[in-house]
Amino acid sequence: MGLIPAAVERLAAEFGRLPGIGPKTAQRLTFHCMSATPESTQRLAGALRDLHDGVRACRRCFFIADDELCAVCSNPRRDRTLLCVVEEPLDVLAVERSGEFGGVYHVLGGALSPIDGVGPDQLRIEALERRLDDGEVSEVVIATDPDVEGEATAHYLGERLASREVVVSRLAHGLPAGADLQYADEVTVARAFAGRRLV
Amino acid sequence: MGLIPAAVERLAAEFGRLPGIGPKTAQRLTFHCMSATPESTQRLAGALRDLHDGVRACRRCFFIADDELCAVCSNPRRDRTLLCVVEEPLDVLAVERSGEFGGVYHVLGGALSPIDGVGPDQLRIEALERRLDDGEVSEVVIATDPDVEGEATAHYLGERLASREVVVSRLAHGLPAGADLQYADEVTVARAFAGRRLV
Repeated sequence: MGLIPAAVERLAAEFGRLPGIGPKTAQRLTFHCMSATPESTQRLAGALRDLHDGVRACRRCFFIADDELCAVCSNPRRDRTLLCVVEEPLDVLAVERSGEFGGVYHVLGGALSPIDGVGPDQLRIEALERRLDDGEVSEVVIATDPDVEGEATAHYLGERLASREVVVSRLAHGLPAGADLQYADEVTVARAFAGRRLV
Repeated sequence: MGLIPAAVERLAAEFGRLPGIGPKTAQRLTFHCMSATPESTQRLAGALRDLHDGVRACRRCFFIADDELCAVCSNPRRDRTLLCVVEEPLDVLAVERSGEFGGVYHVLGGALSPIDGVGPDQLRIEALERRLDDGEVSEVVIATDPDVEGEATAHYLGERLASREVVVSRLAHGLPAGADLQYADEVTVARAFAGRRLV
């Protein structure tokens, strides 16, 4: 028999599976939930339960959405000639926080990483090309992370799109190397947008 | 209309209410749950939902339990003459990790803090006195946190129990001042137990 009730061990184990949550933090969160009101714990449980039902990927750009199209793609005031390519949905939020970009997005779903078995076919590159086929987009801004995988992905995209009638640019290296785009502050992201350069 | 689906905003807000989870971490946990399998998110939701049903406070010592008595109080091999008084249930785990203590516990439910409106009546001090009335306990080890509130609580308990036929001791100040007992490492807690002194 353990020292702690099974229901408590179970919750601590589930918290511990979240990224960046170690065993001690998981235990602390669990004990917080126990001493909190049952209502507040049930609110968190309900929000988790309903998450996947209330969210889908945007049919066009693969950002998160609660309908066929996300809030960006369904906004008629966004500039459809300007398309920003990012790795993950959280990266869209980082770019939006900068206030520097009025176009639309394309979420690749990751970056090239041969060691992890992620090649071009594992990313949404064909879907990107299909979006470019109709000729509405005049500039593609590549905003992959400034790390090895992101650089490789940007380089690959630059070559793959080179034959097209579209300007391909990249965010400037105002971004600190080796970091994640989604952690960058607004000013850094804004400067990187302003200083984007041709591939 | 916001940029993010309501179900996502809602989960991020609930994560953000947990202690030590800021807005960016809450967002990151939320996006992790979205990209994780629905099953793993439902497991966390289920663990939260079932938490309060599977847990109660031990009738005797107020540590967490899945029955009337907790695992410590229902263990016949624990020394019932030695009683360790702690603030919170997590403190019991810190003492157990030290391996230095074979007695039983009493969880006060906090520490004296006039500024927060916590006086002796808000703590489980009367319940402690009722436990001492039958004379089985020969030593009370006060293991409140080594911060201002914990020191005040230890001092108050020392005076309140002074007229009883029981030895009252306190953990030694091997514990770093101003910290929480539940974060202390095993060796520090063990030394503090070994060096406990009479009040």
